Amino acid sequence: MLGGIEAGGTKFVLAVGPSPDRIAARHTIATRDPATTLAEASDWFAGRGALSALGIGSFGPVDLDHRSARWGFITNTPKPGWADCDIAGYFGQALGVPVGFDTDVNAAALAEHAAAGSADGGLAYLTIGTGIGGGMVLDGRPVHGIAHPEIGHIFPRRHAEDREFAGTCPRHADCLEGLASGPAILARWGCSLSELPAGHPGTAIIADYIAQTCHTLFACTAVAQIVIGGGVANAPGLVEQVALRAREYDAGYFPGGSQHRIIRPRLGNDAGITGALMLAAAARKA
Amino acid sequence: MLGGIEAGGTKFVLAVGPSPDRIAARHTIATRDPATTLAEASDWFAGRGALSALGIGSFGPVDLDHRSARWGFITNTPKPGWADCDIAGYFGQALGVPVGFDTDVNAAALAEHAAAGSADGGLAYLTIGTGIGGGMVLDGRPVHGIAHPEIGHIFPRRHAEDREFAGTCPRHADCLEGLASGPAILARWGCSLSELPAGHPGTAIIADYIAQTCHTLFACTAVAQIVIGGGVANAPGLVEQVALRAREYDAGYFPGGSQHRIIRPRLGNDAGITGALMLAAAARKA
Repeated sequence: MLGGIEAGGTKFVLAVGPSPDRIAARHTIATRDPATTLAEASDWFAGRGALSALGIGSFGPVDLDHRSARWGFITNTPKPGWADCDIAGYFGQALGVPVGFDTDVNAAALAEHAAAGSADGGLAYLTIGTGIGGGMVLDGRPVHGIAHPEIGHIFPRRHAEDREFAGTCPRHADCLEGLASGPAILARWGCSLSELPAGHPGTAIIADYIAQTCHTLFACTAVAQIVIGGGVANAPGLVEQVALRAREYDAGYFPGGSQHRIIRPRLGNDAGITGALMLAAAARKA
Repeated sequence: MLGGIEAGGTKFVLAVGPSPDRIAARHTIATRDPATTLAEASDWFAGRGALSALGIGSFGPVDLDHRSARWGFITNTPKPGWADCDIAGYFGQALGVPVGFDTDVNAAALAEHAAAGSADGGLAYLTIGTGIGGGMVLDGRPVHGIAHPEIGHIFPRRHAEDREFAGTCPRHADCLEGLASGPAILARWGCSLSELPAGHPGTAIIADYIAQTCHTLFACTAVAQIVIGGGVANAPGLVEQVALRAREYDAGYFPGGSQHRIIRPRLGNDAGITGALMLAAAARKA
């Protein structure tokens, strides 16, 4: 049996299953301090029978460098208590199994890539919610570089009807996350996109910023598919608007552009936990 | 003996060598119509003795999809006569050897990655010249996605002192290439960056656009090193300004950011042709 953890800032989703696409049991717990949260998660797995491996898709930043003494750590997060938390080490020790570890968004990208038939051309997964993050699978493998992508911190061009808002990112003010995350939407308009009155330009503004992000990902990596999840992406019609706007930005230029897709998650809310189970399957083989 | 071609819009650089890092002979020819150019290149190789494989790093767009009937073609380039040119097929037939094929910038990225000791964390190669392009090596392999990156066509934010210029990209107007390529610099200021008078803001403006591009690449892929070549990058101090400005954009945020490097090519003008010979070495093994 494989175990998986989708470790988020608000909740931990736990699951076990004989393979990543078959979840036998799942459980959700609230994220509190690390000691309480990790112990509760570990207890739940202990009650599920023997595991062969565990996979963790985690909020970050995380250390993914296998040569590092802090591999498997959540590193310098501002989340109280969680900085320098050895999350992979904790579960490896508590459960006595090999642990696969990556970002929550790389895990989701792995799962969506598999759900897309592992098609060539790669797949990026964006989550637009409390924060904005992205993961990517190219050539069948999650993209790490020297650490992991932080796609939420690119700087889209300001929309003509959104010149005044300062942005909410503590580090970059009006980067993508500072302009298009849930808190940025709330700060500007006092409600979510779904709650805006008809005719309000908010949805078009947010769609434009996300479309610029898709254009940038296509330009930088030629990735074929971009999957957009997260709470903000649930706003009716948003992802469809993003796809149309991104096509306008391309203007028929990109080679392979006719094969570009911008879509909602095929796995719905299960992309992250399914990806965590895929990380477990890979760790079992390694 | 390996053969290599750096196929550019202005010139073809040809070389042979026993290994990619040892060039035994080289020759440069002007790019004219395909029939003339390819025949002259082929004749030069025929006079160099038997080859075991040929590598081509080509201007684009190109078809890199091995399942495609047009793999190895230069596809819909506006360059007169060159659209739908089966460049890999021509040399495979003329020289009777296996052919490795990729973009000029992916070839240069491969060579610079090897020159950097094939360090983990990946490497991107940007060329800022008549056009702007980029290639990338992640996890030891060139990035293709569904086609190949077109990094020159992202949209940087307009610099405060550069609001009026419309941009020169026929498709996107003021994308990166439309703002920061050699022709865009000439169209604005009537000379190259190196020829601008002291105190002119031009170099800072161009450095800012390239720095935004580096920030975007770090954010999207977490690539460790960005190598900047091409004629525009020869302007004194430009790449150093780019590196400083990119650090300001990061603002200490990126995990792994302390290991980010923005540098001039270690191989100088030899990155492209060395990469072409690496493509030959890979084709020989395949």
